[in-house]
Amino acid sequence: MVKRILVALGGNAIKQADEKGSPEEQFRNCMITCKLLAEIVKSMEKNDGMIITHGNGPQIGNLMVQQEEARQIVPAQTMDIVGAMTQGQIGYMLQQALLNCLKDEGIETPVCVIVNQVQIDKNDPELLGKAASKPVGNFFTEEEAMAVKKEHPEYIFKKVKPVGEKAWRRTVPSPYPMANVEGAAIRKLVDAGFIVIASGGGGIPVIQDEHGRYKGVEAVVDKDLAGERLAEVCNANVFLILTDMEKVKLNFGKPNEQDVDKMTDTEAKKYLEEEHFILGSMEPKIKACIQFLESGGEKAIITSPDKTVEALEGKTGTLIYRN
Amino acid sequence: MVKRILVALGGNAIKQADEKGSPEEQFRNCMITCKLLAEIVKSMEKNDGMIITHGNGPQIGNLMVQQEEARQIVPAQTMDIVGAMTQGQIGYMLQQALLNCLKDEGIETPVCVIVNQVQIDKNDPELLGKAASKPVGNFFTEEEAMAVKKEHPEYIFKKVKPVGEKAWRRTVPSPYPMANVEGAAIRKLVDAGFIVIASGGGGIPVIQDEHGRYKGVEAVVDKDLAGERLAEVCNANVFLILTDMEKVKLNFGKPNEQDVDKMTDTEAKKYLEEEHFILGSMEPKIKACIQFLESGGEKAIITSPDKTVEALEGKTGTLIYRN
Repeated sequence: MVKRILVALGGNAIKQADEKGSPEEQFRNCMITCKLLAEIVKSMEKNDGMIITHGNGPQIGNLMVQQEEARQIVPAQTMDIVGAMTQGQIGYMLQQALLNCLKDEGIETPVCVIVNQVQIDKNDPELLGKAASKPVGNFFTEEEAMAVKKEHPEYIFKKVKPVGEKAWRRTVPSPYPMANVEGAAIRKLVDAGFIVIASGGGGIPVIQDEHGRYKGVEAVVDKDLAGERLAEVCNANVFLILTDMEKVKLNFGKPNEQDVDKMTDTEAKKYLEEEHFILGSMEPKIKACIQFLESGGEKAIITSPDKTVEALEGKTGTLIYRN
Repeated sequence: MVKRILVALGGNAIKQADEKGSPEEQFRNCMITCKLLAEIVKSMEKNDGMIITHGNGPQIGNLMVQQEEARQIVPAQTMDIVGAMTQGQIGYMLQQALLNCLKDEGIETPVCVIVNQVQIDKNDPELLGKAASKPVGNFFTEEEAMAVKKEHPEYIFKKVKPVGEKAWRRTVPSPYPMANVEGAAIRKLVDAGFIVIASGGGGIPVIQDEHGRYKGVEAVVDKDLAGERLAEVCNANVFLILTDMEKVKLNFGKPNEQDVDKMTDTEAKKYLEEEHFILGSMEPKIKACIQFLESGGEKAIITSPDKTVEALEGKTGTLIYRN
């Protein structure tokens, strides 16, 4: 039974892989997604709650390209700031689309967007040395990459494709989320009956210095791990992760590939150890689900957006539940 | 006596006119501004409230340039979306700076940012024909302007400088704000003790269609007029507008120019009619103050950021009060 649900939307909820990301395309996708979210709201009781988080990969990628292309004319902003921009952008589009879909259903629930920082450990291994594992922005030739690096010696570039000329990309750290900085405000709004969109793109990563002052970091926190932190703060009982697969798969991409209908957190941990899941893709989703259940959550569900309603009814998707 | 204050920050609170707007410059300016805001918070009682709004001219200008420069690679976003980006960007920077300044003062008041739509009338005269009065983005030569217009026939370009080659700019409508769409969420947070940053850049302008659905518009709402709407929703008793002048001036720029220490709303209206104030600059600020007082506000104050504390003590700035 859904009492309070956190929905984590994947990139395809806002921009399909084969699209460039025009305003029309993005608003159209948001409407498709928000129709489904409105269906969930419709099925809930008045005092239940919904919190929404979302990825920002394509949008931050496009903004990073724009920062770079116009560099000679206007100053490029750092990734924490660009991440904040995507929270405004995507938050606005989702908020408006959801308000409109709810209105179509005759539902008056208000929606709002919180610009949201996520605290990371300043000693997180991802921040040290060359560990940065998350590729962002343009593909470059080695020559181009080195030219940008000359201007920004702090950037890390890695060869991310084995072949092809434009095989280099900037990579940034992907540290672990410790706490949602604006958690109290979000909780207050959810308790008061607002649908809240927050922690977009995994939140804006910030560290605290020795005086307790926050400072932005050029990094990307995994949006499902950060969403799980938000689910905890809001005391959600259901954590729904929407991605591009109807069900989680074991032996992914192998001849003995196999759907998972349901599994316990203990089984999920075993599968993680056996490396069934792609790093940086399904793996953090499974980790987030386990963390959610261990912190008191009831049900974690992973499915594709078009199967949302059926998955909540237990008819499809992958259910992860406590032992 | 300040019980609940709405502070409207001008563009110079985030980017000085002689700066390009690098992340370092903008965070430095935010810290200077937020030290002053922390001073105000310090002087207030625990149950008082503060709401902050801000301009976004330089930031939306830079983002519009970036949209244009990278147009061949990634799709340019519409102005409503770009406005939402600036709310994320500036909201994040101000929020972080204010949290840090409050922490330095030992104050635990939480701060949050709401991505905020402002409703405008779909029949606003500024939206009709070629009325669009607000210049945005790059300066172009006539030839360049016409080239962009070929791609975007809906754009309006006007010659905004009497001389010089690059004298053309895109202009967009500057409609009147009717209502703050997320007002209820903001009010809830302010009542619960949060400092809320909202209505950035005058809010994201939206109209409602015949079915009540919201839709973004490429326009710029004046940030002080929109801020006044927010002050009403939050039941603020003081409206503080920070700009680049310590006091409002009569006969501005003329030999008989004269500071105003205080005036009633009736006097302010008379001066408006006598055209003492520059259109689109001091004029909407005075209008916003009159509207604030007429809707039940106690005091409107216009001054420069460095005079904030003295102005609140009645020692400088221009005070506008009810008859």
